[in-house]
Amino acid sequence: MTDGFLSHLECPACGATYDADVPQNLCACGSPLLARYDLERLAASGALDDLSARPPTLWRYRELLPVRSDEHVVSLGEGMTPLTPLPRLGAAVGVPGLLMKDEGLIPTGSFKARGAAVGVSRARELGIQAVAMPTNGNAGAAWSLYAARAGMRALVVMPRDAPEITRRECAAAGAELYLVDGLIGDAGKIVGEAVAGGSWFDVSTLKEPYRLEGKKTMGLEIVEQLGGRVPDVIVYPTGGGVGLIGIHKALHELRALGRLDGPLPRLVAAQAAGCAPIVRAFEGGARTAEPFPEAQTVAFGINVANPLGATLILDAIAETGGCAIAVTDDELLAAVGETARLEGAFVCPEGAAGVAAIRRLRADGWLEPDDEVVLLNTGAGIKYPQTVSADPPVLAPGDRLPAG
Amino acid sequence: MTDGFLSHLECPACGATYDADVPQNLCACGSPLLARYDLERLAASGALDDLSARPPTLWRYRELLPVRSDEHVVSLGEGMTPLTPLPRLGAAVGVPGLLMKDEGLIPTGSFKARGAAVGVSRARELGIQAVAMPTNGNAGAAWSLYAARAGMRALVVMPRDAPEITRRECAAAGAELYLVDGLIGDAGKIVGEAVAGGSWFDVSTLKEPYRLEGKKTMGLEIVEQLGGRVPDVIVYPTGGGVGLIGIHKALHELRALGRLDGPLPRLVAAQAAGCAPIVRAFEGGARTAEPFPEAQTVAFGINVANPLGATLILDAIAETGGCAIAVTDDELLAAVGETARLEGAFVCPEGAAGVAAIRRLRADGWLEPDDEVVLLNTGAGIKYPQTVSADPPVLAPGDRLPAG
Repeated sequence: MTDGFLSHLECPACGATYDADVPQNLCACGSPLLARYDLERLAASGALDDLSARPPTLWRYRELLPVRSDEHVVSLGEGMTPLTPLPRLGAAVGVPGLLMKDEGLIPTGSFKARGAAVGVSRARELGIQAVAMPTNGNAGAAWSLYAARAGMRALVVMPRDAPEITRRECAAAGAELYLVDGLIGDAGKIVGEAVAGGSWFDVSTLKEPYRLEGKKTMGLEIVEQLGGRVPDVIVYPTGGGVGLIGIHKALHELRALGRLDGPLPRLVAAQAAGCAPIVRAFEGGARTAEPFPEAQTVAFGINVANPLGATLILDAIAETGGCAIAVTDDELLAAVGETARLEGAFVCPEGAAGVAAIRRLRADGWLEPDDEVVLLNTGAGIKYPQTVSADPPVLAPGDRLPAG
Repeated sequence: MTDGFLSHLECPACGATYDADVPQNLCACGSPLLARYDLERLAASGALDDLSARPPTLWRYRELLPVRSDEHVVSLGEGMTPLTPLPRLGAAVGVPGLLMKDEGLIPTGSFKARGAAVGVSRARELGIQAVAMPTNGNAGAAWSLYAARAGMRALVVMPRDAPEITRRECAAAGAELYLVDGLIGDAGKIVGEAVAGGSWFDVSTLKEPYRLEGKKTMGLEIVEQLGGRVPDVIVYPTGGGVGLIGIHKALHELRALGRLDGPLPRLVAAQAAGCAPIVRAFEGGARTAEPFPEAQTVAFGINVANPLGATLILDAIAETGGCAIAVTDDELLAAVGETARLEGAFVCPEGAAGVAAIRRLRADGWLEPDDEVVLLNTGAGIKYPQTVSADPPVLAPGDRLPAG
């Protein structure tokens, strides 16, 4: 057990600081808050030197996480997902050095488990007993299940069109679940009203600082799995963008700790053409995004018309020389099948958007053939069964297969 | 790279031996064949001494696996699934020292990935280019996807009632998929006819020796994760029973290697009351099982009326002082919800059958309150969404939540 290296919360917009040991939501200026650690003391402690001998979960980065006492850790074994080479798909899209960080291999089947594990653990540590959030499905499922494990109540509001499996996960966990005949923004307003009533703590995307800390472990793991270095490019399917912001934060922390040298990887936000607020802002050279009108895509997890973290996303892209790019639903659906057939990986439509984005970036010349590219597959394809059609022939017992 | 320690194949029924370096199916006597290793040479080599520093996949047990050359390994990062404490569920069923080995956190979302990874890798090494199998769903999905990764053809026949998601996984992978209006036995007969045609290699359960080698890694991991010892009891949802046979084999190999002392854990086969051939045989004191008539259960993965490995299962149970027990569909469906609400784990119905079995065994006094029990959850609950109903209220944008 350690009291940890968490020192305070800081606003990246106005620089205000906040006490990390009481529950906090946004900065008074409206920006998300970021957790800050005493990295100098951590570097001097040598605490992370035995990393390779630790169990394969995200808690191996204990000293870079906000939970002060091990007794508050709520874990289902999340983290250290595989970094899998995709040589055949890579060759097909023009970058043979393609790797996939597969976030399907995690409790609840999506990367949202990382944010939920760390967010729920820290909430429990701070004495919070009831959490509320809008969701496009996977985050609600993850927070409902981790909250159940923590003995905490959860209120979840999700669009009626969110993946049906996630609805059942929330129900199984015993969450208080509502659907809304609208988008995640509409769900967010309903949650906002409920939170104002005072009996729920708001854990909406970036409205509390610790979900991000869970997500950043994807960045920590990529560096460890590559033997202490970064790839040339990281492609991230971007809705709320917390994963991209988190990876960027992780890389800066590793640098400050003296555990990473050289340039950061170029960070790429992959979006769906039907909901591409970050792409529009990037193309227009803006540091903020406008709400995307009539947002719609089959890649439901990235259907976020007005991400609260837009500035943090755009800044991370700009600082690393990255970009933002949109692909059509047809392109990403084709990439689901192509990835399964060539690599045996059944990825989620958001991950497939990343595959399609890589193909485009290579075709445009933005990617070079020898670039090492890490794609984040943010969830398991089995959570979105309807992205693949299957209509096989039906035989009777005793039948033979048709010749052929 | 190593040429490995695999020495030959052996028939556990008649003792005949076979060359492991050419494709083999059953023994001439009709029994499955088991892979044998030169354990004396392996023990002397010290090759497994650096285990804790190896990557967290089942390939860390390389020297106890049949693939001779690393270049043939077909991997999606499978293995080293979490061993998660379930203290609240344990207290509810009467054994607080309950742990769950969560096989939902693996490619394709079920433990079948282990058998597919090792089976496909070894098949590729032996020059096989097309594999065929009947399946209750998850094995077909796993073998289809790993075969795709290996560039190998796959023929899969599954019951029409098998979980629909698995059908889509096979289709996504590009497998040749057929449904049959019957049970897995009917699918097996159709595959048998196709295999007799000569262009497919039969990878049905236990009809080739290497799927079992993948499954046995669950046993190797349990011992490693417990720090080199075994629990009192291991509960295994048993259909074909390859996992139970594999765990038993693994424990014997570790013993022969001098890496495990003391009595083996009592092995428990948990079955559904609607398909309980092993339970019937166990209760009748038989070493073979009779086909179970009109087999039916919602826990589709354990709907195997006539398991080829029955004798191996019954022998493993008898040798370890274990037992076989059946639970009703109502009991196991209730356990799905209870496990989610108390522990945040959405388990598959087969895993839930294990939970219900543990409750019964404790009530019967077969389990003591201080027994340490490891439950195998053989797959992710999200592959069986229909086991949980969800009918939440639907709100319109701008609505408030109902008071309460």
